[in-house]
Amino acid sequence: MTAPVYMTNTWYAAALSDELTATPILRTLLGEPIALYRGASGNVIALHDRCPHRFAPLHKGQVFGDDLRCPYHGLRFNALGACVDNPIGEGKIPKAACAKSYTLAERDGIVWMWWGDQPADESQLRRWPEFADPERYTSVEGYIRVKGEYQLIADNLLDLSHAEFLHPYLATEGFNRRTQYSMEQQGELVVARNWRPNEPISGLFAFAYGDDAPSHVDHLSIVKWQAPSTLRLEIGVTRPGQAPEEGPRSYQAHLVTPETAHTCHYFWKWGRDFKLDDHDFSKKLQASLQLAFENEDGPMIEAQSEHMQGQRQEALNPVLLPTDSASLRARRVLQQLIDKQVAS
Amino acid sequence: MTAPVYMTNTWYAAALSDELTATPILRTLLGEPIALYRGASGNVIALHDRCPHRFAPLHKGQVFGDDLRCPYHGLRFNALGACVDNPIGEGKIPKAACAKSYTLAERDGIVWMWWGDQPADESQLRRWPEFADPERYTSVEGYIRVKGEYQLIADNLLDLSHAEFLHPYLATEGFNRRTQYSMEQQGELVVARNWRPNEPISGLFAFAYGDDAPSHVDHLSIVKWQAPSTLRLEIGVTRPGQAPEEGPRSYQAHLVTPETAHTCHYFWKWGRDFKLDDHDFSKKLQASLQLAFENEDGPMIEAQSEHMQGQRQEALNPVLLPTDSASLRARRVLQQLIDKQVAS
Amino acid sequence: MTAPVYMTNTWYAAALSDELTATPILRTLLGEPIALYRGASGNVIALHDRCPHRFAPLHKGQVFGDDLRCPYHGLRFNALGACVDNPIGEGKIPKAACAKSYTLAERDGIVWMWWGDQPADESQLRRWPEFADPERYTSVEGYIRVKGEYQLIADNLLDLSHAEFLHPYLATEGFNRRTQYSMEQQGELVVARNWRPNEPISGLFAFAYGDDAPSHVDHLSIVKWQAPSTLRLEIGVTRPGQAPEEGPRSYQAHLVTPETAHTCHYFWKWGRDFKLDDHDFSKKLQASLQLAFENEDGPMIEAQSEHMQGQRQEALNPVLLPTDSASLRARRVLQQLIDKQVAS
Repeated sequence: MTAPVYMTNTWYAAALSDELTATPILRTLLGEPIALYRGASGNVIALHDRCPHRFAPLHKGQVFGDDLRCPYHGLRFNALGACVDNPIGEGKIPKAACAKSYTLAERDGIVWMWWGDQPADESQLRRWPEFADPERYTSVEGYIRVKGEYQLIADNLLDLSHAEFLHPYLATEGFNRRTQYSMEQQGELVVARNWRPNEPISGLFAFAYGDDAPSHVDHLSIVKWQAPSTLRLEIGVTRPGQAPEEGPRSYQAHLVTPETAHTCHYFWKWGRDFKLDDHDFSKKLQASLQLAFENEDGPMIEAQSEHMQGQRQEALNPVLLPTDSASLRARRVLQQLIDKQVAS
Repeated sequence: MTAPVYMTNTWYAAALSDELTATPILRTLLGEPIALYRGASGNVIALHDRCPHRFAPLHKGQVFGDDLRCPYHGLRFNALGACVDNPIGEGKIPKAACAKSYTLAERDGIVWMWWGDQPADESQLRRWPEFADPERYTSVEGYIRVKGEYQLIADNLLDLSHAEFLHPYLATEGFNRRTQYSMEQQGELVVARNWRPNEPISGLFAFAYGDDAPSHVDHLSIVKWQAPSTLRLEIGVTRPGQAPEEGPRSYQAHLVTPETAHTCHYFWKWGRDFKLDDHDFSKKLQASLQLAFENEDGPMIEAQSEHMQGQRQEALNPVLLPTDSASLRARRVLQQLIDKQVAS
Repeated sequence: MTAPVYMTNTWYAAALSDELTATPILRTLLGEPIALYRGASGNVIALHDRCPHRFAPLHKGQVFGDDLRCPYHGLRFNALGACVDNPIGEGKIPKAACAKSYTLAERDGIVWMWWGDQPADESQLRRWPEFADPERYTSVEGYIRVKGEYQLIADNLLDLSHAEFLHPYLATEGFNRRTQYSMEQQGELVVARNWRPNEPISGLFAFAYGDDAPSHVDHLSIVKWQAPSTLRLEIGVTRPGQAPEEGPRSYQAHLVTPETAHTCHYFWKWGRDFKLDDHDFSKKLQASLQLAFENEDGPMIEAQSEHMQGQRQEALNPVLLPTDSASLRARRVLQQLIDKQVAS
């Protein structure tokens, strides 16, 4: 077991916007313990959690304006990590008194952290206009921490055949037999497509159509993976033969960030273009999705991870099925990107 | 601390018969995580818990007939571990899609697992006819997991002098002074004998005699150890001077299987030839024995084990007493058997 | 991470007198698991917890007179660790059947353990006459175990500036600005002095003065550190301009003993020379101090320790403030003493 090498000079999801307030939270991201908070300016701020003085946990400190005061001896750090106040005695501030700060960017309800030594490149930020346009979309969101390696989450999403067994209420008996699976790479994007024409309509979309629901629909799911571990899902149904945009649709972000080599953070957002003002439905949808992640996907990935005993998947010679092709491709693309960065 | 070498080409207890149903259980045996279940045929089945596809935990899957279906992507394995169904897409089954299977044998209410590369030899199975003959014997049973090395359990049983201190309600003050301890090796069997002539009768056997109970009895306990860690206890009392078979007797199996180098499974069964139909007594006996293992022997062995910090007993130079001779002999016999196997 | 080297041929606090009774407790001191109890003679006794026979935990045994009987097979050890009884069979006692014993000394309500290969030197015992003179002083006491390296506790106490941030109810806003910090070494003693003239009186001392309390006082705190980790605190207030001994005062012992390289035992006693008979106040004082250690200092030191990941402070290049000078000096003195011992 050697330390993992992560892709650098890229954005990783650090938090959902709603998680960050004037009360800092501690989150370990790519192995580094980080205090995350929102300053009085409204900006989101990230400082290494370890005070450079006596290594106290900064996230237990108090926020003043955009500054964070250490809970142990009161050194105050600004959003860039510079010490701006020593409240003791004559108050001299040693030059070295700096907390490492991290560049954050907040878009579409997601707080991203730049990871790398090159300047942060905001043009690389993956956007989800659906989550920032309440006139046309309504969204719900959630978070879980998973005791498993972060790439296992992408594996899970790039092969939705698991729904029949792990989420039986989301799928119908034998639906895998009726699904056409395909995969293609579009540049650095890996796209998995699941197509089930003329399938009995599921509860979610019957609800979307309302009284007018057809008994059968064409069901299309598209999963788009982007390095390092950003996934977009588009799921929709149409009356048989219609074009995808004619039916009710849902747009999902699944964002995975390594916590350590063997654990990760999993953020999800789920927007829909139907029943926009039905708050009760939003509540139920959020709860049932969060429960599926907590009780089904999460435990499955943790059990997988335990059986892998810290080894990489490749080292364990998995027996592969055709439905593994998208996740294998994503792993290969990511490894190529990392190898290129390590070599340069 | 090097990895332990276990005796091979032998049977280890894997479960009590009553534990195995159509809902699989996960049990780690000799370091391997194993899914154990009973198929529709009534046969007991053991498959390595790690699905060869994506390493999902098979024991969380569903049983169909004698097959086990993986809970993640639905591959179905038969009792021999061969993949017999891939429910996704065209359903091709890769040749390598095999789960390791283990040979089990069920006898006398005990499920044994063969451990070794030679063909399973059923003639080696240790039999307990007492547990399979309800006309003449009634038995109770139980199980605990112990965070201690498996040989410490045999040590415990081969030196029953501990009862006076660890189980004071089972022994009378000073009973060790009145006991004649002896030990002999019979081939590969190690037999410890505890003989207390003309001893005040204990509660258990006073109950066995009923109104006719003598005040004093000859008390004989015989502990027979067999490699790797199968123990048979025969405990009985007689009116002073009578032959052992003339009094009420109890027959016990204590079966210990390594879980890991430092933890083990402890199965016990206890048959008696008196009060055969007294279910209330059976219940109380089961509960008090199970409690003794859980609250007294188990914690003692775990504390011992913690003090040994993963080292072998020999390395720690124990101070030995005459009453240690049986357990030392058993350790020596086992080591000789293992050494012979390793050399061959 | 190499094993820590502790100062030897010195006394470490092992327990508070009130902790030791005829029911032994297990406490790991400087890496060794030790059974501590009070014999029928009233003497406090310390034996290595691991029975030399089968490594059973002696602290679970029973005390007879000054002897301790092993809970597993009944070997009985006297206060010097010699086996004095084998209750089994003919009762022979092997010569090697000795438990390691430790030299204890009980003074001023504190049980000290000598650590080293030279004869115990009672003249080295740090005395607290305040805790043994109920006519003039009343004291309260407590104990916590801290999952942090023992020197972090001395660091905490030698820099009381943390009170403003960690114990805000003990300090007033900005009190660090009004404090004159100084430090000096007196032989092997390190003394930190905190002087706040004409400070608003705090609740504790307003209570001490009673109806006659002045609104402002001169507040002096003196912290005296002695190797390896014995601290004496003297805190008092006077009407502005008066001599220290004219006001109410409190005397504290803070005694820290390594449990392992990364955890420690923290014993404290707090004597006062006012409101001697106010038991209600004693109760509240004990509870609020114990809570401060449990909820504020303890967790802070544990978080620090977690951020240090087992590395020594020096290796992590802390940014130092003038208020760190006393704790740095104490660390240097201790290191010099240890280096001298290792070299000799």
